[in-house]
Amino acid sequence: MDAAEFRKRGKEMVDYVADYLEKIEKRQVFPDVEPGYLRPLIADCAPQDPESFEDVFKDIEKIIMPGVTHWHSPYFFAYFPAASSFPALLADMLCGGIGCVGFSWAASPACTELETVMLDWLGKMVNLPEEFLAGKDGQGGGVIQGSASEATLIALLAARTKTIRQVQSEKPELTEAEIMGRLVAYASDQAHSSVERAALIGAVKIKSVPSDETFSVCGSALKKVLDEDKAAGLIPFFFCATLGTTSCCSFDKLLELGPICNKENIWMHIDAAYAGSAFICPEFRHLLNGVEFADSFNFNPHKWLLVNFDCSAMWVKKRSDLIGAFKLEPLYLQHHHQESGLVTDYRHWQIPLGRRFRSLKLWFVLRMYGVKGLQEHIHKHIRLSRQFEHLVLQDERFEICAEVVLGLICFRLKGSNELNEALLKSINDAKKIHLVPCHLREKFVLRFAICSRTVESTHIKFAWQHISQLATDLLKTWGQNHHQQ
Amino acid sequence: MDAAEFRKRGKEMVDYVADYLEKIEKRQVFPDVEPGYLRPLIADCAPQDPESFEDVFKDIEKIIMPGVTHWHSPYFFAYFPAASSFPALLADMLCGGIGCVGFSWAASPACTELETVMLDWLGKMVNLPEEFLAGKDGQGGGVIQGSASEATLIALLAARTKTIRQVQSEKPELTEAEIMGRLVAYASDQAHSSVERAALIGAVKIKSVPSDETFSVCGSALKKVLDEDKAAGLIPFFFCATLGTTSCCSFDKLLELGPICNKENIWMHIDAAYAGSAFICPEFRHLLNGVEFADSFNFNPHKWLLVNFDCSAMWVKKRSDLIGAFKLEPLYLQHHHQESGLVTDYRHWQIPLGRRFRSLKLWFVLRMYGVKGLQEHIHKHIRLSRQFEHLVLQDERFEICAEVVLGLICFRLKGSNELNEALLKSINDAKKIHLVPCHLREKFVLRFAICSRTVESTHIKFAWQHISQLATDLLKTWGQNHHQQ
Ligand SMILES: Cc1ncc(COP(=O)(O)O)c(C=O)c1O
Ligand SMILES: Cc1ncc(COP(=O)(O)O)c(C=O)c1O
Repeated sequence: MDAAEFRKRGKEMVDYVADYLEKIEKRQVFPDVEPGYLRPLIADCAPQDPESFEDVFKDIEKIIMPGVTHWHSPYFFAYFPAASSFPALLADMLCGGIGCVGFSWAASPACTELETVMLDWLGKMVNLPEEFLAGKDGQGGGVIQGSASEATLIALLAARTKTIRQVQSEKPELTEAEIMGRLVAYASDQAHSSVERAALIGAVKIKSVPSDETFSVCGSALKKVLDEDKAAGLIPFFFCATLGTTSCCSFDKLLELGPICNKENIWMHIDAAYAGSAFICPEFRHLLNGVEFADSFNFNPHKWLLVNFDCSAMWVKKRSDLIGAFKLEPLYLQHHHQESGLVTDYRHWQIPLGRRFRSLKLWFVLRMYGVKGLQEHIHKHIRLSRQFEHLVLQDERFEICAEVVLGLICFRLKGSNELNEALLKSINDAKKIHLVPCHLREKFVLRFAICSRTVESTHIKFAWQHISQLATDLLKTWGQNHHQQ
Repeated sequence: MDAAEFRKRGKEMVDYVADYLEKIEKRQVFPDVEPGYLRPLIADCAPQDPESFEDVFKDIEKIIMPGVTHWHSPYFFAYFPAASSFPALLADMLCGGIGCVGFSWAASPACTELETVMLDWLGKMVNLPEEFLAGKDGQGGGVIQGSASEATLIALLAARTKTIRQVQSEKPELTEAEIMGRLVAYASDQAHSSVERAALIGAVKIKSVPSDETFSVCGSALKKVLDEDKAAGLIPFFFCATLGTTSCCSFDKLLELGPICNKENIWMHIDAAYAGSAFICPEFRHLLNGVEFADSFNFNPHKWLLVNFDCSAMWVKKRSDLIGAFKLEPLYLQHHHQESGLVTDYRHWQIPLGRRFRSLKLWFVLRMYGVKGLQEHIHKHIRLSRQFEHLVLQDERFEICAEVVLGLICFRLKGSNELNEALLKSINDAKKIHLVPCHLREKFVLRFAICSRTVESTHIKFAWQHISQLATDLLKTWGQNHHQQ
């Protein structure tokens, strides 16, 4: 395929994508396929001779689409949103075309510099303390990670290195392995599984801090475990606070936790993967109060800020902490400017070496929506979430299981877990909308997340009527067959 | 921006990308900018109100392009190639449009299933042993990682978990921290820095195995360090063999190393980040002989197989080893089919949780080039590399520093390191072509890598004439000012 054919096919693909997104509502949100569906549909091995674009193109509808879960359907209410917008798609096309691999400043200066400035823009939008910004010669700054999981891991590793160095300087008799064996990280019992995974990778202990009845960790709960662990000779070194937990979008109490972490010399990382985008709205910014105590902060524009995956924004107060944990400098990656102090080599800030020109997506989206346009997007989702909450509250058979702060509603039928599992099954089997569940303590709960950029009030109404009807059908037979709690 | 405007702008962007790539030769391959160039060119913070596409679009040439290193210019000979092709760009547009996040089978079945089958296709193309393929119900299989660095890290972590479990079952008196303190990983002194970094992250010791005069690790060298370390009470658990080292594209001797690793119960991972793509050509497949002894194998189609970054292909013989190292199952990520044994949840195979629909790029590229088309791409690069080698060999002032096996030539002026540093500086200051250096033992060496998809014989000739002229200019003044070695 040469450039001339690419011009033609590229335009066809633009139309295909536009058609797909314009008419996505008509597609069944969750596919009918069973595991293993795809293999029999395609060849056993790659063709020896080239196939035409037409051949490949027609297989999209035949082979791929039947197995796609349509994340951007307005009937998709599962997980958390995956962001998507036209400006981000355009930027990604440009990113692919330029095709640079920006692991160091010299590998493509624009790639590094736009990222630094975009993270400053975004940091200002959520009103981060100055210390987190790169500015002209700040100690801090931002970086785009591929995912919140990586941001948490990077923060934990930086904290681990920093703590080991500190302990070794105070107690030179301890080996690194001995110190490692005593390190302990903490997170809420509501924290995302990626925090436990980061500890697993980093080979350090991790403990759950019990959340309170609002599913938030408060200062006294952290204090209690810290005191016990210190008494037992352990070395607390890292706390991951969650703003907007995955199960129910609860918020850890930063203003209580931050000062404790600072006093105890514990790295505080804030994981606001989903909720962070809402902090661009002044009325939600208070949820971030206490960030001034944190060492690192992360949220995912690829969740709720209309920037397509992957784009997870992370800031640190001291970039030297990250770089210090990872810096290795083979000659083929060294370049003229690197010792000038002016230059950021992002490969020291992340797990992979290579990196795409992802800041283009932020640049396009922030400019073409403007701050107001993005605030309006958040506002709309919050309105729809209030609408759904209201509908649930009007139906006495149901209960709301956690305070609705942003775009997630946790709800269930008053009744047993089995009943709610059956309700979820009937919802997902009908495939008119798609939800996933969670556990809140011992309760099986349905999560309804406002996801699609194009979801409107009518979809919410439809979803509720549908759920409510399925509940009615279910309850009719349930009483006869099951003993209720 | 609505779908109608996206149709219009998307087509403009397709043309912009086509123009960029068609005329890339005319752009200066390495930019003129100094660190910090970009910040003064753009606003201090994001605009409140939306800007138009035109405004953003015109800033691409004004602000971005002046700071881009043009990786796809036929005058770019630095690092290793970053793959790019039109079919891959088309697939990436589709990937963005679908915008699913395929962390589990249910999150988008097509995303998982196409990946499994594409990795089987690719595995067959390089003639991997059956055990590495997923097939219908194999124990092994492939996964797309973001980068070779992540593949190495994942392999090391899986090996770490496996070894700790084994040792604990044999010696229950040892704590995990005690075992960790005795684990040791190995790689060539020529291995990529990502291997050392993986060990740093995984908190295990790593030792360099001395390579021989061809920059390859042979069996006896590994045997020697293993014996010493075992005698000292350490537990060798992981060896990363490199096929195609970053500095000079040398090859570790798999057929000697593999049996040792198997006998000593050491996980052997093969990092063939760059060279792996060449194994699709029968005449280079022998370089992979010995892969049958490995536990995991990785190469980067995003380097040399025309699939845009990111697409790093990794295979394991026992998928349970990877999954066993990472599996954590919160309810919101569980789904109906996961215990059926038929289903792959790729989030257990990688560091991030989220993942894009990257297998579409492989599917488009493998079908639209066909195996023969991809072989022709490799062949062309090898022809050009032989051409450059030939030109160097004809000039008595120069020497070739390592055997030229694939598309990388390591060369230098016969003379001091300072002389060669000066030559590289004059090459990169002229900015007509772009190279990076490396060290081979104590020698400073210039690396000339065949990179661009569109590089032709004329560019190679031009590059050599240019280098040769700069050398002449340099040598004229050098004798007067410097004492030669
Ligand atoms: C609170 C929280 N943290 C982390 C993650 C993981 O995000 P990622 O896929 O970017 O790793 C999620 C995903 O939903 C989340 O809700
Ligand atoms: C041998 C080798 N391994 C690993 C890497 C790192 O690749 P990635 O950027 O995919 O992590 C490279 C990069 O050039 C390499 O040459």
